[in-house]
Amino acid sequence: MEALKERIRREGRVLPGNIIKVDGFLNHRVDTAFMEELADEFARYFDVSKITMVLTAEASGIALATICANKYGVPMVFAKKAKSDNIEGGLYQSEIFSYTYKKKATLIVAQEWLGPEDKVLIIDDFMAKGYAMQGLIDIVNAAGAELVGIGVAVEKGFQHGGDSFREQGYNIHSLAVIEEATPDHITFREDDPV
Amino acid sequence: MEALKERIRREGRVLPGNIIKVDGFLNHRVDTAFMEELADEFARYFDVSKITMVLTAEASGIALATICANKYGVPMVFAKKAKSDNIEGGLYQSEIFSYTYKKKATLIVAQEWLGPEDKVLIIDDFMAKGYAMQGLIDIVNAAGAELVGIGVAVEKGFQHGGDSFREQGYNIHSLAVIEEATPDHITFREDDPV
Repeated sequence: MEALKERIRREGRVLPGNIIKVDGFLNHRVDTAFMEELADEFARYFDVSKITMVLTAEASGIALATICANKYGVPMVFAKKAKSDNIEGGLYQSEIFSYTYKKKATLIVAQEWLGPEDKVLIIDDFMAKGYAMQGLIDIVNAAGAELVGIGVAVEKGFQHGGDSFREQGYNIHSLAVIEEATPDHITFREDDPV
Repeated sequence: MEALKERIRREGRVLPGNIIKVDGFLNHRVDTAFMEELADEFARYFDVSKITMVLTAEASGIALATICANKYGVPMVFAKKAKSDNIEGGLYQSEIFSYTYKKKATLIVAQEWLGPEDKVLIIDDFMAKGYAMQGLIDIVNAAGAELVGIGVAVEKGFQHGGDSFREQGYNIHSLAVIEEATPDHITFREDDPV
């Protein structure tokens, strides 16, 4: 998606450790109008008329997933990290390793809000190694729900999480896949054909 | 807001420890169309034409804050909990105690995204003792920004966080204030006049 790539080129910053910061519009300060454009773009790749929900993981996926769900007319469910006293029993769980926080976490979704009748579009703001994404996929599978597709705003292609999912046959589309990032230059992969 | 109270009466569940679960539409599975109605209701109490941003705290406030910000035409910023490697230097910080998770956490907002020129509407899904809210207020004050108002969807009135802010003179409005909650019955406070 050229508008997203242009925005990353203009506002993104590359930090040591292959960290690409786009927190001015995507995952700290959120430009919600721009998120609507991303939601429209996802709708070119996925048949959003057949989904029953959008699933994401807390915290930074929630804003984009909310705009998408609102636009597609379905509820948004976010997997929570770790266990709070507010979620009792009846949970789907998946252990993940957070690349961002360098520690393990458990993603949980209440069984009440995801079941075999659901057709799920997973939406996330960022994907690197794909650990959190694998956790979301595991949860969809545990529920016996149908995974319609996986939409990611920014994928770090050089960390190969996305390509691993592609090789496994998942219907995954990232709006901007970063092949290489240095402080001076960011190289993007060509967009998937619609 | 009668529609919200009705929804809490119909779908809310009261658990031991004064926990009120509304995770079917507000903070796990999110009914984004209903969030639009909440956003419209907040706009009756606050002059949203003068705000420059909506501020909330991760994670469960993000969905509602996103819908509000999108409707009001301003960016949404969410305070992050704890420190990740992705946020370097230049931070506003506030230590809070999470009633939900029974532990301390630090709310952080990058100074880049909040400054003295900002007019801030804080939006959160839930308020009990108000610890997280105090953290957000501290951050707005640390930035020298103007706090236009505080909008909360569901306030647990019997835990007095909201009343403490009212006594301090904050422009705070909660769409549903729960005065008493038992497994059989929930009593609400009367709505604030517009």
